Amino acid sequence: MGIEDAGPGTVRPGGRTARVRASVLRAAGDALAEHGFAHLDLVDVARRAEVGKTTVYRRWGTVTGLVADLLLEMAEESLPRTETGSLLGDLKANARLVQRTLADPRQGALFKAVLAAATGEEKTAEALHRFYDTRVKEWAPCVQQAVDRGEIPQGTDAHEVIRAVSAPLYYRLLTSADRLDEAAADRAAEAAVAAARAGAYLRGDDGHA
Amino acid sequence: MGIEDAGPGTVRPGGRTARVRASVLRAAGDALAEHGFAHLDLVDVARRAEVGKTTVYRRWGTVTGLVADLLLEMAEESLPRTETGSLLGDLKANARLVQRTLADPRQGALFKAVLAAATGEEKTAEALHRFYDTRVKEWAPCVQQAVDRGEIPQGTDAHEVIRAVSAPLYYRLLTSADRLDEAAADRAAEAAVAAARAGAYLRGDDGHA
Repeated sequence: MGIEDAGPGTVRPGGRTARVRASVLRAAGDALAEHGFAHLDLVDVARRAEVGKTTVYRRWGTVTGLVADLLLEMAEESLPRTETGSLLGDLKANARLVQRTLADPRQGALFKAVLAAATGEEKTAEALHRFYDTRVKEWAPCVQQAVDRGEIPQGTDAHEVIRAVSAPLYYRLLTSADRLDEAAADRAAEAAVAAARAGAYLRGDDGHA
Repeated sequence: MGIEDAGPGTVRPGGRTARVRASVLRAAGDALAEHGFAHLDLVDVARRAEVGKTTVYRRWGTVTGLVADLLLEMAEESLPRTETGSLLGDLKANARLVQRTLADPRQGALFKAVLAAATGEEKTAEALHRFYDTRVKEWAPCVQQAVDRGEIPQGTDAHEVIRAVSAPLYYRLLTSADRLDEAAADRAAEAAVAAARAGAYLRGDDGHA
């Protein structure tokens, strides 16, 4: 049995199976960025990755399974949060990371492709939601730290603040031809901080009166 | 020549040609909401609309042309803004309109379908951008009125404020399984007002220092 036929449970980080996964997911990302989900094809991905198509079919099964694993890897590989000592500094770092990712031609096209795929595929939507949950949880502690420093009110919903930073950048990407620049990133962070200070993200009904 | 063969320039509002357009666009919206852009088919749309397929091909040509016309009609038909006398009241009215639209099963699925289509089709993206431009321009005057009343600073970018209200609702729709409820709409409006008051949406580089 060749290495490419290794089943689940045989993955060693840095081993051949991990390298096969990295190659296939890289190829899947390239194909998605170039042609979108509708044209994603396991045989094409195998060819791009220089991996046997049997391996790809055995390990990922379907294009949906492949995209779900790609989103899992994107969450695993996403950068840890930056700590700057202030909420505005932390959220600007987060906003600029999102902005650079979405403004990058390959990454921007890849995110558009998986967002589009998730609108029509429940399994892809679930994998996409897990990706964003992971990202939000990675950055949420900076909001609690700001509460502890007295920058923003007790009871602020940290997840809502982190989502508020990304939302205008994704909205701009999907609904306009406007360039996603650093000014847009900084404005997203500034708006989230101002709204958090004013209590717009307090948990519970009392916060939304 | 039958009414269905009427060419461009013959449209009378309320006339048969207008009714054919309304039927075909309604059918196109239903098909998009049910099956997404990838499965949109002019013959199926003609059958659903009970209109000859020749008419549909002559008038709209391609699925892309049909979706562009649907987005044009959605902009034409979208509700005028509400005036409540305060920026928070106006933006809550706007946010609840967006929230109700996206939370509606047919409309939510339709918006997801056109957003997804726009990620892969330049003509659809342009039509989508025009739709959002129209919506933003419809609501922007309420921000200038708030400037005139002294609620928010001179130099506030009205379009950015209106976009800030929609952004978290679209972000929630596309990246999470969380329900789009009125609390989410109100929070989006409250956050936009707080950020606008704090000067986060001032035009020009000075506003983003």
